[in-house]
Amino acid sequence: MEFELIERLRQRTPLYPCVRLGIGDDAAILDLAGQHGVVTVDVLMDGVDFLLSEIPPEKAGRKALAVNLSDLAAMAATPKACLVGMVLPRKGGEKIGEKVYDGILALAREYQVGVAGGDTNTWDGPLVLSVTAIGTPPPFGGIRRRGAQPGDRIVVTGDFGGSLLGKHLDFEPRVWEAAYLYRTYEIHAGIDVSDGLAADLVHITVESKCGAVIHADKIPISKAAQELAKGSRKGGRALDRALHDGEDFELILAVPPGEAKRMLRDQPLTVPLTDIGEFVEQRGLWLETGGKQTVLEPKGFVHQFA
Amino acid sequence: MEFELIERLRQRTPLYPCVRLGIGDDAAILDLAGQHGVVTVDVLMDGVDFLLSEIPPEKAGRKALAVNLSDLAAMAATPKACLVGMVLPRKGGEKIGEKVYDGILALAREYQVGVAGGDTNTWDGPLVLSVTAIGTPPPFGGIRRRGAQPGDRIVVTGDFGGSLLGKHLDFEPRVWEAAYLYRTYEIHAGIDVSDGLAADLVHITVESKCGAVIHADKIPISKAAQELAKGSRKGGRALDRALHDGEDFELILAVPPGEAKRMLRDQPLTVPLTDIGEFVEQRGLWLETGGKQTVLEPKGFVHQFA
Repeated sequence: MEFELIERLRQRTPLYPCVRLGIGDDAAILDLAGQHGVVTVDVLMDGVDFLLSEIPPEKAGRKALAVNLSDLAAMAATPKACLVGMVLPRKGGEKIGEKVYDGILALAREYQVGVAGGDTNTWDGPLVLSVTAIGTPPPFGGIRRRGAQPGDRIVVTGDFGGSLLGKHLDFEPRVWEAAYLYRTYEIHAGIDVSDGLAADLVHITVESKCGAVIHADKIPISKAAQELAKGSRKGGRALDRALHDGEDFELILAVPPGEAKRMLRDQPLTVPLTDIGEFVEQRGLWLETGGKQTVLEPKGFVHQFA
Repeated sequence: MEFELIERLRQRTPLYPCVRLGIGDDAAILDLAGQHGVVTVDVLMDGVDFLLSEIPPEKAGRKALAVNLSDLAAMAATPKACLVGMVLPRKGGEKIGEKVYDGILALAREYQVGVAGGDTNTWDGPLVLSVTAIGTPPPFGGIRRRGAQPGDRIVVTGDFGGSLLGKHLDFEPRVWEAAYLYRTYEIHAGIDVSDGLAADLVHITVESKCGAVIHADKIPISKAAQELAKGSRKGGRALDRALHDGEDFELILAVPPGEAKRMLRDQPLTVPLTDIGEFVEQRGLWLETGGKQTVLEPKGFVHQFA
């Protein structure tokens, strides 16, 4: 532990009612008002999830919390608190740690998330950030990956592809959007897109024991994906980027047809909702292009073992 | 994510009643039966907290959970669930991940802790483990660092020093001991020893706004500390090792004098309880040797910035 750094971070950390005991003891105590706890952790590493040589540490900190808030959003849970684990490079680590924390605190304030504690270390390796987020589920339990039914529409928020141009750092976790949709419409299942539109849709189909058909012409392709596809021969097709790039942190929802129609007519969010296809009985994933269906192989970002 | 590895880990993970939704969704849902959540995180790195070149990965996994259980024990909290964040080296990472998990699961079973979720990644760096533990506090809130009063005795479990010879990996977190002591005796404050007996005692005095005097001849010095002190000229005095080595993961408790007497007479644990000194009004830390008090500088393990 770096006592002085921790003391400075502690003094800058706002208090929230749900944090009964915050930074400075052996553990934190959270008051979840008698509700269940929804908990998730993500570990981000310099060189894999961000490049500290190219971005300020604040952005790395922001992303480390944001990906966790996105996980909570995928369940329509309300974020309450987080724990911040940092492994700082020995050289310049103190400054990096403070800036990482700046990024975390700024996003935490936006979503009224209390930083309840953490663990601060140094080593000779690159920056590693491990954020644990804790929230509470909405009434009736929230959204899960399991529950999609054949006939359900595939409804997505926002657009897809090319997140490497910036969105993978600056994305807004769909916390309010998920909460609003969950309390206004019937939603059978859902997930947030980290591995890729296709790969994360597969997660829903596997857990829900069904299949899915995506309509190629309905996929909202981001400007970033189009730019990347245009900019270089290596860029690939914009459609492929939308399907596989990952880290869009948009929501994929399984919605009964009538409810989906209502959602799309209402368009209640500041971000567009799009119906991109349907869940089907037969297991598998297909892309429909000009009336023809072909098997779609998910190839989103997967950490590889040697 | 490594889907196959995660699927294998999931299939091996026992279910506990408090884990309402476990591995396999965007977040886990915990049922804390309406109680507050006590949460803590620790990040452990190969080369700093363990040497994967010298120990099997199971031991690294065990330690990663055990240090968190020790933090919960320091508050007399009951562990309920944990989240396991792993960053695996690309080379051989799959096997390492499984073995780390073995070590975690074995200890989790001992303490009836449900593994509720996690995050699995790979990179070209060394193994990093980030475990988050979640528990519930005992009635009346549990033990904190704040609360020691001048006149309180300093009571410790077990012995100190030389944990590098093995105890830093094999220690038993004092979960049951803390729970028993808390419900049987009046305890004003407490902490578990990770940074060192002296350094962690300072944490209590700072939070409690008081000082402490340790009696040199009363400190329970471990055999390992004595061995190290004997074994090499560099080993230093056994007493210094007991005061500063750290990672003993024993408890330091602030106990009113009458209660301390009762505790020591009862000796209700399988591990000895020892009275090693007293809390005093004047801020600071002193070592009393043969009736003489000298200022004691804590110099426990501290991560250093360059």
